[in-house]
Amino acid sequence: MKKMEDKILAEGKVLPGGVLKVGSFLNQQVDIRFMKEIGDEIARLYKDSGATKIFTIEASGIPIAISAGFAMGLPVVYAKKHKGSNIAGDVYSVPVKSFTHGDTNNVVVTKEFLSPEDRILIVDDFLAHGSALTGLISIVEQAGATVVGCAAAIEKGFQNGGDTLRKEGYRVESLAIIDEMTDEGVVFRKQ
Amino acid sequence: MKKMEDKILAEGKVLPGGVLKVGSFLNQQVDIRFMKEIGDEIARLYKDSGATKIFTIEASGIPIAISAGFAMGLPVVYAKKHKGSNIAGDVYSVPVKSFTHGDTNNVVVTKEFLSPEDRILIVDDFLAHGSALTGLISIVEQAGATVVGCAAAIEKGFQNGGDTLRKEGYRVESLAIIDEMTDEGVVFRKQ
Repeated sequence: MKKMEDKILAEGKVLPGGVLKVGSFLNQQVDIRFMKEIGDEIARLYKDSGATKIFTIEASGIPIAISAGFAMGLPVVYAKKHKGSNIAGDVYSVPVKSFTHGDTNNVVVTKEFLSPEDRILIVDDFLAHGSALTGLISIVEQAGATVVGCAAAIEKGFQNGGDTLRKEGYRVESLAIIDEMTDEGVVFRKQ
Repeated sequence: MKKMEDKILAEGKVLPGGVLKVGSFLNQQVDIRFMKEIGDEIARLYKDSGATKIFTIEASGIPIAISAGFAMGLPVVYAKKHKGSNIAGDVYSVPVKSFTHGDTNNVVVTKEFLSPEDRILIVDDFLAHGSALTGLISIVEQAGATVVGCAAAIEKGFQNGGDTLRKEGYRVESLAIIDEMTDEGVVFRKQ
């Protein structure tokens, strides 16, 4: 998606340690017209997938999931992050390590919101090492549901999470893939 | 909003301790068609407010803020919850106590996303004791911006947060106000 690349170049800020700040349009502040285009693009990519539900994780995945939900007319489910190991109730859960914050959260979703008949499209804002998407895939598979694919707004190609999932056979679509990110600039993968 | 009351009666679950579970349509799982109606209703209520930005707090406020943002064509900013007191960087922050979880989070937003010229519409899913809205109002006022009003999907009228804010002069619109909630049922305030 050319416009995602343009937005990253115009408004993204590269910080030390492979961090890309896009808080001015994607998380923290949401450029609502652009967010609609993101949802429309995900709907276009997955229009023939037979998806029945969109699945993401709080918090920064939610705007993208809601926009894609509007575009596709599908319900959205978001998993919650839960610190500590005392998970109560009838839930699916999986531990997920955050490379950004260095800690581990349990990712949790109430069982009744995923069923074996569901065909799930997983979305998130960033795909880097792939730990969040891998956790969400694990939850979908615990529920006996089908993963039709994943969509990320921005993939850090140099951290290999997306390519690992593709090698495992999952469909992974990212609206922009960054293969190199330095003080001199950002290099996008041709798609 | 009659439909919000109907949804609460049809799908809400009253738990001990004044807890109302609406995870099947409002948070955790989002009924996307109903969420569009929520956004449209907030847009109708605040169409003459001159709002320039919608402000909420992660995570369950985000779907409502995005839907209202779509309906009003306005950017959305969401504050983050930050545990611990080591707030770094150029941010506005305020401590907010959660009555649901019993802990205190710092509510944080990067300064560049709120400016003195902004006219802010604050939205959230629940309004109970009003601690989250009061925190968001404090942040808007720290930024020198104007609060045009607040909109909540569901207000627990018996916990008085909404009425306290109204007495202070803020415009507060809730799509359903629950004045009583017992095992026998839910009593809505006439609006």
